[in-house]
Amino acid sequence: MNDTRDPDAHDAVSEKAETDISEAVEQSGVISPAFIAQVVGAVGDGDKPFLWRTVKELHPADVADLLEHLPPEAFRKAIHLLGQHLPAEAVAELSDTARLDALNELTDAALSAMVGHLDSDDASFLLGDIEEDRRARILSKVSATDRAAIESSLAFDEETAGRLMQRAFVAAPVFWTVGQAIDHMRTVSEDDLPEVFFEIYLVDPGFRLQGTVPVSGLVRHPRETLLKDVMKEAPVLVRPEMDQEEVAYLFRQYNLASAPVVDEAGRLTGMITIDDVVDVIQEEAQEDILALSGVSEAGVNQSVLSAVRARSPWLLLNLVTAFLASVLVSLFAVVIDKVVALAFLMPVVVALGGSAGSQSLAVAVRAIAERDLEGQLARRAIRREALTAMINGALIAGLAGLVVLLWFQDVKLALIMLVAMASTFMWAGLIGILAPLTISRLGQDPAVASSVFVLTSIDLMGFFVFLGLASLLLV
Amino acid sequence: MNDTRDPDAHDAVSEKAETDISEAVEQSGVISPAFIAQVVGAVGDGDKPFLWRTVKELHPADVADLLEHLPPEAFRKAIHLLGQHLPAEAVAELSDTARLDALNELTDAALSAMVGHLDSDDASFLLGDIEEDRRARILSKVSATDRAAIESSLAFDEETAGRLMQRAFVAAPVFWTVGQAIDHMRTVSEDDLPEVFFEIYLVDPGFRLQGTVPVSGLVRHPRETLLKDVMKEAPVLVRPEMDQEEVAYLFRQYNLASAPVVDEAGRLTGMITIDDVVDVIQEEAQEDILALSGVSEAGVNQSVLSAVRARSPWLLLNLVTAFLASVLVSLFAVVIDKVVALAFLMPVVVALGGSAGSQSLAVAVRAIAERDLEGQLARRAIRREALTAMINGALIAGLAGLVVLLWFQDVKLALIMLVAMASTFMWAGLIGILAPLTISRLGQDPAVASSVFVLTSIDLMGFFVFLGLASLLLV
Repeated sequence: MNDTRDPDAHDAVSEKAETDISEAVEQSGVISPAFIAQVVGAVGDGDKPFLWRTVKELHPADVADLLEHLPPEAFRKAIHLLGQHLPAEAVAELSDTARLDALNELTDAALSAMVGHLDSDDASFLLGDIEEDRRARILSKVSATDRAAIESSLAFDEETAGRLMQRAFVAAPVFWTVGQAIDHMRTVSEDDLPEVFFEIYLVDPGFRLQGTVPVSGLVRHPRETLLKDVMKEAPVLVRPEMDQEEVAYLFRQYNLASAPVVDEAGRLTGMITIDDVVDVIQEEAQEDILALSGVSEAGVNQSVLSAVRARSPWLLLNLVTAFLASVLVSLFAVVIDKVVALAFLMPVVVALGGSAGSQSLAVAVRAIAERDLEGQLARRAIRREALTAMINGALIAGLAGLVVLLWFQDVKLALIMLVAMASTFMWAGLIGILAPLTISRLGQDPAVASSVFVLTSIDLMGFFVFLGLASLLLV
Repeated sequence: MNDTRDPDAHDAVSEKAETDISEAVEQSGVISPAFIAQVVGAVGDGDKPFLWRTVKELHPADVADLLEHLPPEAFRKAIHLLGQHLPAEAVAELSDTARLDALNELTDAALSAMVGHLDSDDASFLLGDIEEDRRARILSKVSATDRAAIESSLAFDEETAGRLMQRAFVAAPVFWTVGQAIDHMRTVSEDDLPEVFFEIYLVDPGFRLQGTVPVSGLVRHPRETLLKDVMKEAPVLVRPEMDQEEVAYLFRQYNLASAPVVDEAGRLTGMITIDDVVDVIQEEAQEDILALSGVSEAGVNQSVLSAVRARSPWLLLNLVTAFLASVLVSLFAVVIDKVVALAFLMPVVVALGGSAGSQSLAVAVRAIAERDLEGQLARRAIRREALTAMINGALIAGLAGLVVLLWFQDVKLALIMLVAMASTFMWAGLIGILAPLTISRLGQDPAVASSVFVLTSIDLMGFFVFLGLASLLLV
């Protein structure tokens, strides 16, 4: 087909490629388009050595990025060609859709090997997506210790601390010295230590957590220092059942790099590290952005069908509420028929009311996520939203009234516009904070459930007040 | 006024309070309302010992939370009563508005003392908010080393890596052994080491960065191991001028806990730690949520005036675009006058189109923030949005046409509805991704600039196609 498919040209291509891998990732951390094209070519050629070298030299996160940039066909073929050479960490870094595709493409043997390499939290993350039969087959090929750790992690619900935590951590008896702890870490096998860790945990003989010592604390104190003299109480105790959003809040609140997880008896059972929590923080914020716009899911390389499924429920609901509003408007057919200007102006009332409501809603959803609307603060926020709505309402309604006066030279119509807009703003401001607050107190996600309720009520309110006043004053 | 103001009751109150501080923070990390009430009482009484004990026993992040929960008057009085007993870290944890208020309330002497305690990044963060004269006065009272570090940090633009980085880090010559590095950290004064650190940096005699060793790597290798045998290349080199959003992306991409900052010559100049980056990640995501709804700023305890200022520009712009749409509608007065049903139905067309556009927009803004729309991926996303819009458009427009047919028993009107909605959906889907992509390629923030453009164009498109078709077919 093209030159690079000529088998004689292979060596030349691979040689050129070798010098290029170092330039695959641009300064900004983005994969260079030229390099992607080269990889697509290599996949087409079945040039395994080049692909193996590439995944070996690149950071796993960049390997994941690179794979996601390949067209679907090339992606599958690349996974196939790479097989067990594909680093497990790269698979864990793939986006949801791509990860599922990759898992389908990989053999059980390749997956067993990967799972053995990963920390238990990442291993159970990968296996969580695989159907049970296959998972059992894969787990039967990993060591008993790894299997136990992964299975106990999978026993916790999704989106809990139990799923985020890893089983590998460093614990030391509370009576040890700094030197004993360091010697211990120097003698245990590499496999028994987590890949990275930022603190060690001190436990009593019953393995109950007594305190933590940052690793940087170990290297700044003399060997003979007693650990219990430099330990601090853990600022938070994470339980395995805790929701991951709560975990993320605690990490942010207390600037944590890692945290111990303890069971109901206070026994140390795992460790959560910040890299997993950063993903949660990012996810939760993104979920709120999408939910406020009525999208349940989105992602790089999402399929069209999945995008349709993620967005149509909201649109269908919206269609119902929009026709509800339109039935309300139809009740005022007589006055619209008489004063056609009402038809030009009513969209202005609901558009502005909707904007003001969206503003309140976004502020409230954000504040709830940051726990800024607890107790006393909620009352203050409601007061602020009401006053803000009143002032912005007066400003915008005044201007709108003025425009109507100048446009139609009709004082009554201008007054109707002014009153309708001001009251719609007031409603928008109040419902924009009260709805998400109420929904969140009921234990539901305010970002998901509030939008439709808030915006529909504002539409109905706007149309009703505007057309109702017009019926009273203009007929 | 009330019992607790009785001076004789003081001791009893303080004693009771003492036992209560441990219960100030609920399991979920939220300050208990009962404790807040107690603190409000203590502030009213001027009970300094109780306040001092409270801030000493609580985590600085909880102190900040507690202060933010106080009514404005009590907040100011509490800051005043606490004075230099207020932990510097708590001030740094306050939200923007509260921090400014606190800085105004504190004396120069108290601030100088605080600044001396903090790492240089936090110190410059506090001082960045203070006007220059006062800042110079405060800085004149801190040590020359601290002053130099803070001033060089303030020399970088806001929201850059230079502002996030701290000057305190651990660097070692590349030829040292593990033992030498540990001995060094055990002998230097506490003040010269960062409060927490997760890695040490290896440098050549010109202080150019050669590699990094995680602190956990120091304690797992024998003392005689050469650092250069266990060092790794830093996965990213952060430059002080780099935008903080870029820094956050790199931390997420490579799962970093800290990263070295190097100048243009490759010399090590600072270190950024994950706790500061987590705040950036959270902030940037929240900014996108707010910007998509036309709010430039929000925060716990934001004043009404500031809320009005943060929201009115968008509403004013929206007022202009809404009247633009209303002028467009007025051009079709004749046909509306003739078929009043158009007035009931046109809001449905633009409402649904607007929803579909918001969905595309939220997905695109999120994807741009995650760098999921680079090169090849952008083309695939545009294709997906177009197809999704087509399918959802067909579905919703079909249903809407059906409703109109049943409601008005008018085939022509139903057809107009169907075609107008389907084409508005198509437009919404395309503009919803093309606008943010274009705006981001032009170097602007897509969340801020896209909404108004996207939604206005959808409104105009929806009204125009619907009423235009009606004019052609119904008059």
